[in-house]
Amino acid sequence: MTTTSNAGVIAPEIIEGAEELSSVLEAARMRGATIGFIPTMGALHQGHTSLIGRARAECYHVVVSIFVNPTQFNSQNDFDKYPRDIDFDIETAFEAGADYIFVPSVQEMYPKDSASKVVVPNISSIFEGESRPGHFEGVATIVTKLFSIVGRCKAYFGEKDFQQLQLVRRLVADLHLPIEIIACPTVREEDGLALSSRNQRLSLDERYAAGILFHALTQGRILIEQGERSRQVIEAKMQEILSNEPMATLDYASVISADNFLQLDTLAGEVRLLIAANFGDVRLIDNIGVTVPMENQKGQQ
Amino acid sequence: MTTTSNAGVIAPEIIEGAEELSSVLEAARMRGATIGFIPTMGALHQGHTSLIGRARAECYHVVVSIFVNPTQFNSQNDFDKYPRDIDFDIETAFEAGADYIFVPSVQEMYPKDSASKVVVPNISSIFEGESRPGHFEGVATIVTKLFSIVGRCKAYFGEKDFQQLQLVRRLVADLHLPIEIIACPTVREEDGLALSSRNQRLSLDERYAAGILFHALTQGRILIEQGERSRQVIEAKMQEILSNEPMATLDYASVISADNFLQLDTLAGEVRLLIAANFGDVRLIDNIGVTVPMENQKGQQ
Repeated sequence: MTTTSNAGVIAPEIIEGAEELSSVLEAARMRGATIGFIPTMGALHQGHTSLIGRARAECYHVVVSIFVNPTQFNSQNDFDKYPRDIDFDIETAFEAGADYIFVPSVQEMYPKDSASKVVVPNISSIFEGESRPGHFEGVATIVTKLFSIVGRCKAYFGEKDFQQLQLVRRLVADLHLPIEIIACPTVREEDGLALSSRNQRLSLDERYAAGILFHALTQGRILIEQGERSRQVIEAKMQEILSNEPMATLDYASVISADNFLQLDTLAGEVRLLIAANFGDVRLIDNIGVTVPMENQKGQQ
Repeated sequence: MTTTSNAGVIAPEIIEGAEELSSVLEAARMRGATIGFIPTMGALHQGHTSLIGRARAECYHVVVSIFVNPTQFNSQNDFDKYPRDIDFDIETAFEAGADYIFVPSVQEMYPKDSASKVVVPNISSIFEGESRPGHFEGVATIVTKLFSIVGRCKAYFGEKDFQQLQLVRRLVADLHLPIEIIACPTVREEDGLALSSRNQRLSLDERYAAGILFHALTQGRILIEQGERSRQVIEAKMQEILSNEPMATLDYASVISADNFLQLDTLAGEVRLLIAANFGDVRLIDNIGVTVPMENQKGQQ
């Protein structure tokens, strides 16, 4: 075990044990260090490294966890196919600025006889939760465990998994966890495709076609900016765009209130455009936020 | 707000806000202080004060929370009838050694839109959980919230609520909470009746009759000590004793393995004798532990 610090790190400290990580970070906090934490399932890409870079800029220590959480996969096939390359991930996390890398085993995170679960009703059963039963229960449980192990910190999440971000915010507030959630913008390819570990599994044709997701979201945003306020009209437009791409099988294209996921008929305030579609057997999701301008008062035009 | 410390406390610090308590205790830990925590629903009696006294002896700061948690009552009637006397409780906690007393509102612990729950399957649905649906979900959720607010500490629980104690141990291990659980012996009246806030609600006749619970448990223990190893025989003995007390309506009288609540037919290792009965509309529970001696090997007699 090498001793590391913010300055002059020559190698990251790889930690497999929850208790060890916990006590290392507790000791660091006692010395006055702040902690930035980026939970990942590995398969790191620039979306992750942008989170790590931001934590590096804002915190004394940067902890990256790499753990492919079995309980959040709703199909064994999806779990088995999830890309894994631990050496690449460790190097990538280190180069991006991590000084502690937590790589627990499944046994470490889910010991024999472990049973407790964290559930966040409502938000867990709509959109991604409806399409992936049990997914968000797995997410809420593993995130709570990781937060408990890491302790007081800033935790960085990408906006790309917007529903996950809101779920994590909800559980941190509800359970009074000493965690500050930092939401970071989605990192995109040149054609707008949101970076995702799943993109690796697209065929070349599917990869080209997948740009349609960002295109549809952008067209929805433009309609709102042009004055359209009907949720149904925006959703129909996004659905129409997706229906013209034969490689895409749409799951949902919806507009919600960003803070509570309500689907109001007349858009107002901060809204989020959500989209999910399959390309072959690869499920992709994306979203963008739009602030709906206040309407002019009648007669002030 | 007065500043307190272990030595020379002249009044406890009463704190209503979760964030305030959290930051006060975090600052104390940064100064090297250890924290002892006793979560209560008020109606403090010597069972509680024995926990507070033990924490006082072992920790620098002692935090007592007083919060009648609505989500763990499975009947509104039981919640409404729960005894409440906050001034008495604060004074009692202080005299017993508390220096911080946390008295949050329901709104503080369950803010608008709060939804997250902690569930501990299996142990939550047997014995007390079977008789009180939803009870242990409420317990697990509030305990997790309180542990998050208080942070790293020793937390003191009475053995009287044995199933609750085991549930809390389970969730602390499962969620990797930085909490050390300290189990403390049940405090009893002269006739053996376990102290409980509910005892206040017994009529004088019921109060006399309630001594039968400890009598039955003790007879069960004696049978084991005399060599009986059949679970059914022990349970039948306890049930028979209860059936001879007309004021008691038995719910269960059972013997379980202490660590996993399994009901083995042949007793071995650490077992727990559990009993629950109603006296009028007051439900009482109690338990005692017995270490079953190793049997002699055949032929070694």
